[in-house]
Amino acid sequence: MDPSKVDIPPLKDLTIDNITENVHMINSRTPDPRLKYILERLVSHMHDFARETRLSTDEWMAGIEFLTAVGKKCTDVRQEFILLSDTLGLSLLVDSIDHPKPPASTEGTVLGPYHTHDAHHQDLGTEISHDPDGTPLLCLCTVKDTAGRPIKDVKIDVWETDSKGSYDVQYENYSNPDGRAVLKSDENGVFWYKAIVPVPYSIPHDGPVGKMLRTLGRHPWRPSHMHFMFEKEGFDHLITALYLRGDPYETSDAVFGVKESLIIDLDTVTPDQAKKYDIKEGSKLLTYEFVLVTDEETRNLRDEEARKAMKKLGRENMKILHGLPVPDVD
Amino acid sequence: MDPSKVDIPPLKDLTIDNITENVHMINSRTPDPRLKYILERLVSHMHDFARETRLSTDEWMAGIEFLTAVGKKCTDVRQEFILLSDTLGLSLLVDSIDHPKPPASTEGTVLGPYHTHDAHHQDLGTEISHDPDGTPLLCLCTVKDTAGRPIKDVKIDVWETDSKGSYDVQYENYSNPDGRAVLKSDENGVFWYKAIVPVPYSIPHDGPVGKMLRTLGRHPWRPSHMHFMFEKEGFDHLITALYLRGDPYETSDAVFGVKESLIIDLDTVTPDQAKKYDIKEGSKLLTYEFVLVTDEETRNLRDEEARKAMKKLGRENMKILHGLPVPDVD
Repeated sequence: MDPSKVDIPPLKDLTIDNITENVHMINSRTPDPRLKYILERLVSHMHDFARETRLSTDEWMAGIEFLTAVGKKCTDVRQEFILLSDTLGLSLLVDSIDHPKPPASTEGTVLGPYHTHDAHHQDLGTEISHDPDGTPLLCLCTVKDTAGRPIKDVKIDVWETDSKGSYDVQYENYSNPDGRAVLKSDENGVFWYKAIVPVPYSIPHDGPVGKMLRTLGRHPWRPSHMHFMFEKEGFDHLITALYLRGDPYETSDAVFGVKESLIIDLDTVTPDQAKKYDIKEGSKLLTYEFVLVTDEETRNLRDEEARKAMKKLGRENMKILHGLPVPDVD
Repeated sequence: MDPSKVDIPPLKDLTIDNITENVHMINSRTPDPRLKYILERLVSHMHDFARETRLSTDEWMAGIEFLTAVGKKCTDVRQEFILLSDTLGLSLLVDSIDHPKPPASTEGTVLGPYHTHDAHHQDLGTEISHDPDGTPLLCLCTVKDTAGRPIKDVKIDVWETDSKGSYDVQYENYSNPDGRAVLKSDENGVFWYKAIVPVPYSIPHDGPVGKMLRTLGRHPWRPSHMHFMFEKEGFDHLITALYLRGDPYETSDAVFGVKESLIIDLDTVTPDQAKKYDIKEGSKLLTYEFVLVTDEETRNLRDEEARKAMKKLGRENMKILHGLPVPDVD
């Protein structure tokens, strides 16, 4: 690239006090206003972090080495950067920003690193877990809109660990999906399947994120839960999970995902239910009514909250485009 | 770990507005006050970044994928996270914070990713570059303290690219160090060696950082320079470089390293010098007087600047320990 085309004032003699504005200046030559805004905030925060901590070269190098180790730990079935984001509360925060929920709807929570695209489409009533050591669980759920109308043909991903607290992909000899399925709600918004009672499990902690948790005196455990993901044209994508009440890790989830509205009590299936749904008597029963929000409701809420956030920041030269603030250059 | 030992209020129902303080709370159980402060600032800035940009899930995932790619690109001889830090101005900032310089001393600048520990200790007068296509350069330098007294026995690392702009370790068949040496200053603080005239070169841009620069409309070039690192007991470690005046990239260095006081004009060796130093007549000549700062001066300056920064932040409950702010828990 021809350096004479770099049409900004000379970048020279940069100091603790003027480096940030100069980095903004050269980055701001991107034609993408959203990228420009993101980079501006990223660089400002990163530099302020270094200034406020008086970050030493040794600490900076420890950070470089930590991030490198996190990257090296990532494989097709292990995403250590997502774990890092989860354990520092960023994942929950981003989900809350991107998927604001009106009061009557089902709250979202962290996706976690174990959703895959391997799960098979199954008929309602399928057995998603084939772990003989699991406690049988009948899941009998509905999905509705905020007006209480059932929604049919919703694509629903469900996934859970086996009775030892491991997801299928965590096994070295993993070949076929287990403990997960893709279902479709029926005419009445009902979807049901057979699973096993979720157990607490620890997030993978044999890597750099585990080491960080130990250094911080934190445990790597998540309370027992089952994951759900809902997709239906016209509705906001819902990523959520249901948690079992009374779990020892209910109040100290390593990834901050627990919400009171998502905590459930399991029942026991009645003899009639056992017969109707062809499941062993005495099996556990999970029931829940999920409420989806339309894309339009979500969009309006997201725009409104983005506008409020910009106002709070005192940023008046911004407009909201697809729910995202961008500099208003008109 | 026994969850009943997690002696903090329940982490539940975390929202955009309260997630940050809750992450601080569980992280603050570390016994290391410095780590506690660093994590508190890191999490605050990361969360504020997400809140201020209204970061979307797709953008968050793009960030996760970018960081993963950066980690994957790192090898023993390629540090893509350092490149990222360099190109976002963080490296220069950290160096400026950690190595404050009083007015009369030599300024520091970015280390860059190509310093190695492979260079051999050489006698003064050594030829550090064996590139036959390079323009011969005699380097005749001194190293003094801020009172103008020569410093002997300083360990000096010098390193530069070959005439094509590549460091030794960038070649696939790299086995022996070239373009680098470790020297020692003599009784008069003098150190001299034979090198080649530095040329501009681009930082490696075949990875994710290169892609980022292209997206931002930035070039990956660094102006011609030679690297220096000085070590001597009792003096602050100096990492710096000298830049050739008039280089096309002098005012748009991809890593923000250029400082006016580090820009030099090359001379031509005189016939007498050519004879004395056994170098071809007409060779180029680099002279420079480096001025080191004592550890004590640096420490005092660092403490003073850290105190000022804490005052500016309004953080009154901090003390400065080894130049680094930590919460004052006494």
